[in-house]
Amino acid sequence: MSTPLITLTSDFGDRGPYVAQMKGVILSQAPAARIVDISHSIPPQAVEEGAWLLSEAAFRFPPGTIHVAVVDPGVGSDRALVLARMAGRTFLAPDNGLLSLCAQAHPPDLVVRLTQPQYWIEPVSRTFHGRDILSPVAAQLCLGVAPEEFGEVVQSLTDPRWPGAEREGQVWTGRIVAVDSFGNLITNIPEQAIAEIAVAPLVIACGDQQVHGMTGAYSERATGELIALIGSHRRLELAVVDGSAAQRLQVSPGAPVRLFPGTRPVPEA
Amino acid sequence: MSTPLITLTSDFGDRGPYVAQMKGVILSQAPAARIVDISHSIPPQAVEEGAWLLSEAAFRFPPGTIHVAVVDPGVGSDRALVLARMAGRTFLAPDNGLLSLCAQAHPPDLVVRLTQPQYWIEPVSRTFHGRDILSPVAAQLCLGVAPEEFGEVVQSLTDPRWPGAEREGQVWTGRIVAVDSFGNLITNIPEQAIAEIAVAPLVIACGDQQVHGMTGAYSERATGELIALIGSHRRLELAVVDGSAAQRLQVSPGAPVRLFPGTRPVPEA
Amino acid sequence: MSTPLITLTSDFGDRGPYVAQMKGVILSQAPAARIVDISHSIPPQAVEEGAWLLSEAAFRFPPGTIHVAVVDPGVGSDRALVLARMAGRTFLAPDNGLLSLCAQAHPPDLVVRLTQPQYWIEPVSRTFHGRDILSPVAAQLCLGVAPEEFGEVVQSLTDPRWPGAEREGQVWTGRIVAVDSFGNLITNIPEQAIAEIAVAPLVIACGDQQVHGMTGAYSERATGELIALIGSHRRLELAVVDGSAAQRLQVSPGAPVRLFPGTRPVPEA
Repeated sequence: MSTPLITLTSDFGDRGPYVAQMKGVILSQAPAARIVDISHSIPPQAVEEGAWLLSEAAFRFPPGTIHVAVVDPGVGSDRALVLARMAGRTFLAPDNGLLSLCAQAHPPDLVVRLTQPQYWIEPVSRTFHGRDILSPVAAQLCLGVAPEEFGEVVQSLTDPRWPGAEREGQVWTGRIVAVDSFGNLITNIPEQAIAEIAVAPLVIACGDQQVHGMTGAYSERATGELIALIGSHRRLELAVVDGSAAQRLQVSPGAPVRLFPGTRPVPEA
Repeated sequence: MSTPLITLTSDFGDRGPYVAQMKGVILSQAPAARIVDISHSIPPQAVEEGAWLLSEAAFRFPPGTIHVAVVDPGVGSDRALVLARMAGRTFLAPDNGLLSLCAQAHPPDLVVRLTQPQYWIEPVSRTFHGRDILSPVAAQLCLGVAPEEFGEVVQSLTDPRWPGAEREGQVWTGRIVAVDSFGNLITNIPEQAIAEIAVAPLVIACGDQQVHGMTGAYSERATGELIALIGSHRRLELAVVDGSAAQRLQVSPGAPVRLFPGTRPVPEA
Repeated sequence: MSTPLITLTSDFGDRGPYVAQMKGVILSQAPAARIVDISHSIPPQAVEEGAWLLSEAAFRFPPGTIHVAVVDPGVGSDRALVLARMAGRTFLAPDNGLLSLCAQAHPPDLVVRLTQPQYWIEPVSRTFHGRDILSPVAAQLCLGVAPEEFGEVVQSLTDPRWPGAEREGQVWTGRIVAVDSFGNLITNIPEQAIAEIAVAPLVIACGDQQVHGMTGAYSERATGELIALIGSHRRLELAVVDGSAAQRLQVSPGAPVRLFPGTRPVPEA
């Protein structure tokens, strides 16, 4: 049996002891655990971007991996912390939508609400459940404690906060869900939307700009050009060749994106 | 016996080969070492913030861990490099105050000044002792070399640079020691100070703002509100709900913070 | 035999799932692999800075290490992906100059153009060959697949893009190749250039500033002073004591630097 893998995802950034404290807690209880960072650069409390990022990365890891995710604006409130098993991976996170996109792809076959304080670090801080609850539970999972031991089995996660794109006739309306390090704008419009609108050419509208047609790869277009393409994550993405689409369009996560057939500008909805 | 853990803490940032060079040196000499990053985002040469961060994270790791810390404005001068053993963990760092806060919590039972160049990488660069001295010493420690072999046993660390908060009557005066990724302002005023000032309500003054009373958790207050709370590190912290206190108050590490009972503004000291 | 080490270097930044996806792919195929990050903060598509960073870090790791590097503005074009063996380490990267500086120091004894899709993740994305080609090849290397299996052995890497400094008489002309986290400006002028210009004092000119003479260590000079020194990487470096030379000089990678003997300003070339 190989050593259990634990991944960490958070909005803690790289300044501060928070991520290291989680690692210390895990390694103190489960010295053989192998910890891998997914990302700690989710913008503060950006649950949707966290949900997207986690869904892109989590299922690339082998079955058996334990994914701990903390983007937790509700810490200190009564939002639940949960363990959810999806496609053979075990997730530990607040039940606030952070797991919603993963669960859409792979509905959980087990959800446990974490209620058993004997597995927590005492005293539990009111501001950092990632360290005081999720980390020791991850370590104990590594050591072989059964998921059901950590609390109460519940039916499902709460309703997903993560919004899918919507189709009305030939028009898809979605939104920017994330910005990556290159300034590429990731939307929630799936690859299939492009295929379903069989009538080329397509128009993609976001901010005050429109893009006509899809591009296969960055290298097909000139430096500085705004393009639309299907990113490696199989969703529609806006990018500027050798530049930043986030800067060019001056939009942030949440901004609407529309996709429709035609060659003429369409008035705003 | 499980594999030795080595943690790295520095102000090297993530751009540049410096952290990777340290890892390469360690893994070349001690291939089985397991390396964990605490943080490399301490602001350049911010010894106090480094001391705070290290003290928050180091003792979360299991006994036997080797902590290598490099925030070293005096590199190339005659400041000493030391090995210090505290609460079963071994620290390697410049003797410039970086270990002071750890040592306040857990006074060292062994301090060795690193003077034995046979354990160093030759030639030792004048600008990067973290790579050329501390890293190979960490690796050799992993391999079982006794701490005393690396140099001369000395009495103690030099005087701590890290300043505690001061109490005069009912008034505590401290300072901001760190800013985390959320813009939360961490002070050096300990949790006990709140309890000792038995007379509620409290006033916390920093920059040109005052906060009246303590908050239990972020979720108790409205978005945008400036609050004072005891952070997960058990020190007084100023935060803006879903925002950045560092931006709101426009203060940096070093700025004074006062805590006192009462409901009226108190003139500046 | 100890577990194989794989390092990752890229311009993916820390926001986004890209680095984690590579780790997930590697660990799914080679669960025992140990992954170390060199840096993911190379500026987007800055092949030269990547080449510098890789050359500084790669040979510090033990022989047998597999270095995966992705700074790949040509993804989707017909640039090749290669495996190159240098000084006992195996490199996987686009053949776009990213390995040029490593190859100058340690000419490869084996170069294989990656052409065997049975080792790739299907379908191969058009925008992310690091995940879909280089990562599984790295994992398979770990598992013992011979380098020649991955494609066609070729003569050498393509011509290096990385420019050396040039000497004309007593005047060296180089350029800034990288900026580190401290704002230090790393040049491509080697340590030997200083020794070869035997006539002190030296002048170093960059941007609109001149530095007279070399400094041994930061601590020798006053806060705020612009200095020239040989960095830990054995190349000429410009720095501001306790400050940022990149900010002071307002120059970026690519900016020219000249080194010459004398005490008077020399007109621009």
